Amino acid sequence: MKQRKGVLIILDGLGDRPIKELGGKTPLEYANTPTMDYLAKIGILGQQDPIKPGQPAGSDTAHLSIFGYDPYKSYRGRGYFEALGVGLELDEDDLAFRVNFATLENGVITDRRAGRISTEEAHELAKAIQENVDIPVDFIFKGATGHRAVLVLKGMAEGYKVGENDPHEAGKPPHPFTWEDEASKKVAEILEEFVKKAHEVLDKHPINEKRRKEGKPVANYLLIRGAGTYPNIPMKFTEQWKVKAAAVVAVALVKGVAKAIGFDVYTPKGATGEYNTDEMAKARKAVELLKDYDFVFIHFKPTDAAGHDNNPKLKAELIERADRMIKYIVDHVDLEDVVIAITGDHSTPCEVMNHSGDPVPLLIAGGGVRADYTEKFGEREAMRGGLGRIRGHDIVPIMMDLMNRTEKFGA
Amino acid sequence: MKQRKGVLIILDGLGDRPIKELGGKTPLEYANTPTMDYLAKIGILGQQDPIKPGQPAGSDTAHLSIFGYDPYKSYRGRGYFEALGVGLELDEDDLAFRVNFATLENGVITDRRAGRISTEEAHELAKAIQENVDIPVDFIFKGATGHRAVLVLKGMAEGYKVGENDPHEAGKPPHPFTWEDEASKKVAEILEEFVKKAHEVLDKHPINEKRRKEGKPVANYLLIRGAGTYPNIPMKFTEQWKVKAAAVVAVALVKGVAKAIGFDVYTPKGATGEYNTDEMAKARKAVELLKDYDFVFIHFKPTDAAGHDNNPKLKAELIERADRMIKYIVDHVDLEDVVIAITGDHSTPCEVMNHSGDPVPLLIAGGGVRADYTEKFGEREAMRGGLGRIRGHDIVPIMMDLMNRTEKFGA
Repeated sequence: MKQRKGVLIILDGLGDRPIKELGGKTPLEYANTPTMDYLAKIGILGQQDPIKPGQPAGSDTAHLSIFGYDPYKSYRGRGYFEALGVGLELDEDDLAFRVNFATLENGVITDRRAGRISTEEAHELAKAIQENVDIPVDFIFKGATGHRAVLVLKGMAEGYKVGENDPHEAGKPPHPFTWEDEASKKVAEILEEFVKKAHEVLDKHPINEKRRKEGKPVANYLLIRGAGTYPNIPMKFTEQWKVKAAAVVAVALVKGVAKAIGFDVYTPKGATGEYNTDEMAKARKAVELLKDYDFVFIHFKPTDAAGHDNNPKLKAELIERADRMIKYIVDHVDLEDVVIAITGDHSTPCEVMNHSGDPVPLLIAGGGVRADYTEKFGEREAMRGGLGRIRGHDIVPIMMDLMNRTEKFGA
Repeated sequence: MKQRKGVLIILDGLGDRPIKELGGKTPLEYANTPTMDYLAKIGILGQQDPIKPGQPAGSDTAHLSIFGYDPYKSYRGRGYFEALGVGLELDEDDLAFRVNFATLENGVITDRRAGRISTEEAHELAKAIQENVDIPVDFIFKGATGHRAVLVLKGMAEGYKVGENDPHEAGKPPHPFTWEDEASKKVAEILEEFVKKAHEVLDKHPINEKRRKEGKPVANYLLIRGAGTYPNIPMKFTEQWKVKAAAVVAVALVKGVAKAIGFDVYTPKGATGEYNTDEMAKARKAVELLKDYDFVFIHFKPTDAAGHDNNPKLKAELIERADRMIKYIVDHVDLEDVVIAITGDHSTPCEVMNHSGDPVPLLIAGGGVRADYTEKFGEREAMRGGLGRIRGHDIVPIMMDLMNRTEKFGA
């Protein structure tokens, strides 16, 4: 039995709702997508609910689900993925957080991003914190880009049900950290101590003395949120399916999810996760990786951003760019030897300007696939697709089965 | 982001099977329903299994499921809903029962409804029981309509797994109460004592002395069944979804379910839950309530009765009356600002003359809805609908998501 390779392409936030400006079509229906339409003709469509019908998914929970894990059982916060995504090496019992450098004046947060402090300044401040703050557990504090940083408390995973101190708007004092159980109460106490001591170090740091003199907002306070630890999964993707798996991703959060479950992660030059990303660089990298890997996951972010920005025409254009990315891949593989799945991690309808619980159209084409009657890729056409309405966690098993890599249960 | 309002219309027992008398159509397919057909064109259809495929649902379990609760986890008997539905104020730890006044002669139940005793006589007898029966717990005993009454044991909710003493046919002695655990064993003992003492009070009551002289069956015994307590739900509907919710209902059992989960319940003049109900009074009330409420639930009962009575043409006529009720609502709202769902709580096929486990056609139309290819509302057309085949408990999350009232899980 021939084993096929798998290509999973996630166009972030792909699904949408009918839009007047597009004549009642969705961006995917409006866009000119000859390659995806061709794949729809020779393949099979359906709708997938990333988590369950009507439930908006986050990017992290949606990817966990699409990679086959029940997010209600596996998800334990975003921080761990963010930390992996910025290149930290973590242990499974570490607890990680997203951090903002912020400005505190007279007990009130006056700027949640410390005047968008530069990456260089932030890294220097992070170093000072790492060297001078003393708390009862080992920690890693690392600057990411701009005002963003990551905090890791070693060995504190059990306390992941801890809240945040971010008031989420300027003019308010920091929140006290909340907790849901004894283990996270301990973490909350450590975080309060950490924030207090970091404030002392930051407030008198030469970089902030200089910013103060220049009239710039000082980066003298830390806002900590998004506690997260290693997802509670029975087995890493690569072990579970016995495949060599690679991901082509630019966004830290999604990189982190892919790393956490065993993918080798690549970010080709030019891939940014922003509107200006180089999708053809991703296509070339994917084709190259298909030589060595059994399963390649390609993530395309900007479709989601266009939904958040309520820009239907831009979303349609980005889908057309994604179509060209997919064409390059299709042109460089033998479709008999590959199973290609294309979907979104969730819907980000322009009218909602956020993730929604609408199902996401799904396309599977390649070797072994039973073609249905569908003619093009789109929300309405997917409703009559042969895959029916499935859950996000069904996608990978269906792919692996078409790839002839599943195992029989029973005799 | 605009938040929409929701209208959920339940045509009780709507689903049916093909009927020779209707040329092989179902009553819904046979009926002339221009408004629902219009909504099907601009909206989306599907099939919903109230509980799960092939499983007939009761009206209480079906409504619990459609309101988003798993009835296998949440349902704890019907009595509580009946008691709420007849206007009793209950605490969450109360245990309630449906009661019949019945006739006992020589140790045998000779009439399960005591000659359909009048409401006035029954209320007088109920008063005598309330005043003269002494058992080890506080109780409320209240006459409803005709031979029907309600019993509430205060604070005894834990014992809801108690059986009944109703032999369900005349000529048999009352059953002893059964039980499934220690808490319900105690309730069974209390009920045996209650029934015995009530029998003593009733048997010598002047009303029964008079009935005996007139040759009428005496109402000297109580048949107690349908033990029920507050449903085991994580949160009331109104709290869970942060909406102000109203119900337009006439039937006690469904009223009770709606009250239990936080709805304000209205029964406009003329709404009876019988064939003679005034559906236009319901429509007007619903439109009025939409000014103040975020979510309005309208229940239409007689379609179910026509199924129980195996009267296909009457069922079709009732569906046409429901269509006019829906037209009034559609004419008085802006469909861009509202999400309307129409379905049944279960199928009541004429050939079955009872609830069946057939899936129920479902229609959703209004703002944000992705239209599918369907053209009219009916069982067969629903099979190719874009909603696919979902569960009853998916309906409200899908509505709330289109109403832009859901919250993201994950980051």
